[in-house]
Amino acid sequence: MDKKQKFSVRTDLAVEAREIIEEEKGDIDDGIVVNTEENEYMDITTVEIINENGSRAMSKPLGSYITIESPGLRENDPACHKEITRKLAECITELCSAKSDSTFLIVGLGNWNITPDALGPKVVNRILVTRHMFDTLPEELDGAVRPAAAVSPGVMGITGIETGEIIKGISEKMKPDIVIAVDALAARRSSRINAAIQLSDTGIIPGSGVGNKRQALNEETLGVPVIAIGVPTVVDAATLVNDTMGSMLKEMANAVEEGSEFYEMLESIDDEDRYQLIYDTLTPYAGNMFVTPKEVDAVIDRLAKIISDAINISVHNGMTIEDTAKFM
Amino acid sequence: MDKKQKFSVRTDLAVEAREIIEEEKGDIDDGIVVNTEENEYMDITTVEIINENGSRAMSKPLGSYITIESPGLRENDPACHKEITRKLAECITELCSAKSDSTFLIVGLGNWNITPDALGPKVVNRILVTRHMFDTLPEELDGAVRPAAAVSPGVMGITGIETGEIIKGISEKMKPDIVIAVDALAARRSSRINAAIQLSDTGIIPGSGVGNKRQALNEETLGVPVIAIGVPTVVDAATLVNDTMGSMLKEMANAVEEGSEFYEMLESIDDEDRYQLIYDTLTPYAGNMFVTPKEVDAVIDRLAKIISDAINISVHNGMTIEDTAKFM
Amino acid sequence: MDKKQKFSVRTDLAVEAREIIEEEKGDIDDGIVVNTEENEYMDITTVEIINENGSRAMSKPLGSYITIESPGLRENDPACHKEITRKLAECITELCSAKSDSTFLIVGLGNWNITPDALGPKVVNRILVTRHMFDTLPEELDGAVRPAAAVSPGVMGITGIETGEIIKGISEKMKPDIVIAVDALAARRSSRINAAIQLSDTGIIPGSGVGNKRQALNEETLGVPVIAIGVPTVVDAATLVNDTMGSMLKEMANAVEEGSEFYEMLESIDDEDRYQLIYDTLTPYAGNMFVTPKEVDAVIDRLAKIISDAINISVHNGMTIEDTAKFM
Amino acid sequence: MDKKQKFSVRTDLAVEAREIIEEEKGDIDDGIVVNTEENEYMDITTVEIINENGSRAMSKPLGSYITIESPGLRENDPACHKEITRKLAECITELCSAKSDSTFLIVGLGNWNITPDALGPKVVNRILVTRHMFDTLPEELDGAVRPAAAVSPGVMGITGIETGEIIKGISEKMKPDIVIAVDALAARRSSRINAAIQLSDTGIIPGSGVGNKRQALNEETLGVPVIAIGVPTVVDAATLVNDTMGSMLKEMANAVEEGSEFYEMLESIDDEDRYQLIYDTLTPYAGNMFVTPKEVDAVIDRLAKIISDAINISVHNGMTIEDTAKFM
Repeated sequence: MDKKQKFSVRTDLAVEAREIIEEEKGDIDDGIVVNTEENEYMDITTVEIINENGSRAMSKPLGSYITIESPGLRENDPACHKEITRKLAECITELCSAKSDSTFLIVGLGNWNITPDALGPKVVNRILVTRHMFDTLPEELDGAVRPAAAVSPGVMGITGIETGEIIKGISEKMKPDIVIAVDALAARRSSRINAAIQLSDTGIIPGSGVGNKRQALNEETLGVPVIAIGVPTVVDAATLVNDTMGSMLKEMANAVEEGSEFYEMLESIDDEDRYQLIYDTLTPYAGNMFVTPKEVDAVIDRLAKIISDAINISVHNGMTIEDTAKFM
Repeated sequence: MDKKQKFSVRTDLAVEAREIIEEEKGDIDDGIVVNTEENEYMDITTVEIINENGSRAMSKPLGSYITIESPGLRENDPACHKEITRKLAECITELCSAKSDSTFLIVGLGNWNITPDALGPKVVNRILVTRHMFDTLPEELDGAVRPAAAVSPGVMGITGIETGEIIKGISEKMKPDIVIAVDALAARRSSRINAAIQLSDTGIIPGSGVGNKRQALNEETLGVPVIAIGVPTVVDAATLVNDTMGSMLKEMANAVEEGSEFYEMLESIDDEDRYQLIYDTLTPYAGNMFVTPKEVDAVIDRLAKIISDAINISVHNGMTIEDTAKFM
Repeated sequence: MDKKQKFSVRTDLAVEAREIIEEEKGDIDDGIVVNTEENEYMDITTVEIINENGSRAMSKPLGSYITIESPGLRENDPACHKEITRKLAECITELCSAKSDSTFLIVGLGNWNITPDALGPKVVNRILVTRHMFDTLPEELDGAVRPAAAVSPGVMGITGIETGEIIKGISEKMKPDIVIAVDALAARRSSRINAAIQLSDTGIIPGSGVGNKRQALNEETLGVPVIAIGVPTVVDAATLVNDTMGSMLKEMANAVEEGSEFYEMLESIDDEDRYQLIYDTLTPYAGNMFVTPKEVDAVIDRLAKIISDAINISVHNGMTIEDTAKFM
Repeated sequence: MDKKQKFSVRTDLAVEAREIIEEEKGDIDDGIVVNTEENEYMDITTVEIINENGSRAMSKPLGSYITIESPGLRENDPACHKEITRKLAECITELCSAKSDSTFLIVGLGNWNITPDALGPKVVNRILVTRHMFDTLPEELDGAVRPAAAVSPGVMGITGIETGEIIKGISEKMKPDIVIAVDALAARRSSRINAAIQLSDTGIIPGSGVGNKRQALNEETLGVPVIAIGVPTVVDAATLVNDTMGSMLKEMANAVEEGSEFYEMLESIDDEDRYQLIYDTLTPYAGNMFVTPKEVDAVIDRLAKIISDAINISVHNGMTIEDTAKFM
């Protein structure tokens, strides 16, 4: 991990990257198109990065980023989860543009030994895997399912091998038409922890959340489209301190007279300096600390259910949300 | 949880309670006697609360609180862990004053579903339980072990029953001579997370760490001495933000001219107001968020090994640290 | 474990005890009333032991034993499981005769470290525990739930304490009106493994299945009615060999001429001698070996869901089978 | 699974295959060389299959098969385990003929969800993985460790992909010099369950034990030497019944007069017919049932420790058995 941590990159969410640009510059760069939609259960934000300007500003590759946000995601709220599952399945289907005989590889990224990083492996545990028995499926499933395989490659600290290499090796053997990769992400705001699902058609860099950044899984490296699905499950401790402090300083600045010495003082604190100062204060443990809710185990289990159900419904196009209970 | 969170109670460690008094008042109250000792591997601080003044100042009952601190506790450092195990076993033996035929009940407090709260149950999993086969033990163990039983009662959210009631019920049936209770604690400083072990002869209030405070397990409620062993495994998010901010404001205050408007401003921020402000800023999730290191699973496993080994050696007085591997 | 194993006691199921009597004596003893009922999904057999003759013949206490049998129990068959859940809930309700304000204690017997013995603890994990928050329940649940607590006391090898003592101790503190105890059982026939659920109003002896027999949990020892729910999850290896061999010898005997030397030989092999011979042949490991299906983990999980759903519906009388997903 | 199960193939152990040949033919075929060695702690049998005759008779490929047998393997016997670990490490080193800079890939075969099949994944969890940090190792480890990677590929029912394909894909990317594959095996005799470790230089067919047979991992398929390490963890139920019955029939035959009708009868029962009869009697569940000891979880954990320690010592040639505790 670099000594100098740059604050602006401490989020994997396109919606947050956009917020930061807005905060810093007051307007959205050209190259970014944002659409929002909301209903009783959730807010849906689509961020399209359409050119290099947008990509540079956002520090993210060109493509579509869809974020489904709902505080209900972290509650035990079956009605809400059912609606989000349906919507997520729709979005996956749309991003995949699969053919009737497409073969899918579902990849669960992350470390199964660390609860907030175990989302990917937990999703993979619930995927209806059909590729190995495709020729012997009961007739009633004919046309209802597509060939699907699923692996959790672990993380480099566990295997000694780049996760990207493992997936490339497996992919070259089994030749999927579409890869769906699921991972835990890092968010900037604690209010988004376990309360948002991001999809994109741009692939993914394993270990963005709890782990360390690694080589990408995307169409360029794997030769087939890679749909990424992620949930922010942690905020790093330094980011949390920084953002909370930022909000408080802003409130204090509002309370003092514009032009006063104190106001100038507060204004003069550079965001990145402040982040660096916090990072140093928290050192030596800061880089290894994260903030997570108490009930993280149950929340991750429910999120894994939502995402795996949505993938199962989308991949196995004859399946309904009711069928998912039947097979899983 | 109360709306108004009082900052000064956000630690279970006597060493931290004493630090806070020092910070606030500049000196140690009467009624508290502190001794420190250190060696290559660890610092040992003994805080004795000897009268009501001390108890009130520390918000803790009269008795001895021994804290073994070492950054090595959170590393995979077998040499250091061996020394700490030995020292811990010594301290347990001293606090217990057990007879040759004393029966022990080891209680593992905390929620096994939440990693940083699972320390107690993990320790219990590694206790050499002998009470049920005491009459049929191999002769070679004669005189080497004492009758020991061990339970992890769960938490009230899991059982629907006060943990204190469960332990009282079991204790009345099996009639132990000494209870040793192990629990995860909350610390104030992130630098102490998983880096300190506190023992005391004052009993324990289950759920001090991650959970909610409950009725005490102590000599008064159980009728026999209760030795408490705890490790701070979490810092709550609001405490972390507050303390980091406190350090930074102090640095800023040092940097500005005494008497200046800004200096006055900084000085005027009351500690408790600040904590409340942070708590409110982090709400609605703050009360449910904690800060923990990434590798928490492995660290808790190693801490459970140290504490269970020390208990096994102390309870089974004929056992050496080498024997612990043999039976566990 | 005794040297001399008696074959006739190697089952916990009343339906099997009755079969054995029938095989041995050709008719059912007085003191036993049997009723059967079947539908598309399951067979239901009610065995009532109504006097001491029946009790002696069956080696079981007086009372009602209801067995729900279905091969669908070990398949992933949601429609079948739903019907069995409903029926089981009905039977529990009937056996309990609870009042509107009765307090329930659900006890999950067995060893959570041994998959086929973990049924009880897994059921307890899914019980909607309400006793601790009964005064603060949302109004919508008013009248819909009753106070319920749930514990998994472990086994004596883990705790060093008789399971019966732990439950008695807890029961004396929390004073339930009804205890429901769930345990894994041993069956005689491999075809019944994970394919039958037995309920009774006679209480239970922990450790009948995988473990060793212990003191009873029943109205006499706990002072309140104890409903027992069990599933046969294992057959011991010696029983399996013996029964398979018995079937084969019977076939061989049918094939040879009556009165021939061979026929006499086959007839002359005493059942208990044969069992003893097999047990000795399998020794020293026989007593510790059991037969279980490969997919035991998934099957036990599904059985735990069925039983916990049925208990939740029966205990919380305002709940429907649809609600169980909502709260669990 | 074929309808007609052939008895003679129901073992993965070369020592058992040889026993069966001996029983059936009374002598050992040419093409097989057997050496035995024993000490206080264990028996070591080396079976060399040196030509096609031997290979055909044994139904196993040409190569060396070393079996370390000890009843102590299934006890908690640290002294015995230490000696076996040392011996196993020696055997691995000899079979590997590794160079000072050889890269190792350790493969843990089997299904982590089924305890007796989880040996391979559990071994992999304890391997000291170094390949990813080889350039940044502390100097004290210079020359003491070699680059090692480790993966548990799962089973086809979990991933939808042939295990052989996954390992080939990974192997082509990371290019190991030597593969060490660990798997659970099926034994014929219940006395060998968890009491023998077999090594060979012939590679392995995943899923021999609990699972179904799949394509081989060997020098031919992977292009580098494949050392296989396996422990018999189960006996299938039909094999157990058959062998027990066989022993008993033999005793009965010994007891009757030679030439009598009964003797002829007993002699006339063909071994394969008997196995088929038992298999049919146990159907429909026989193929899915296995026999395993109660304490299987603890035994598998200890076996995984022995095998992983031996691999760590052999792969990291500067490590001693004392070091394994340090890093694991």
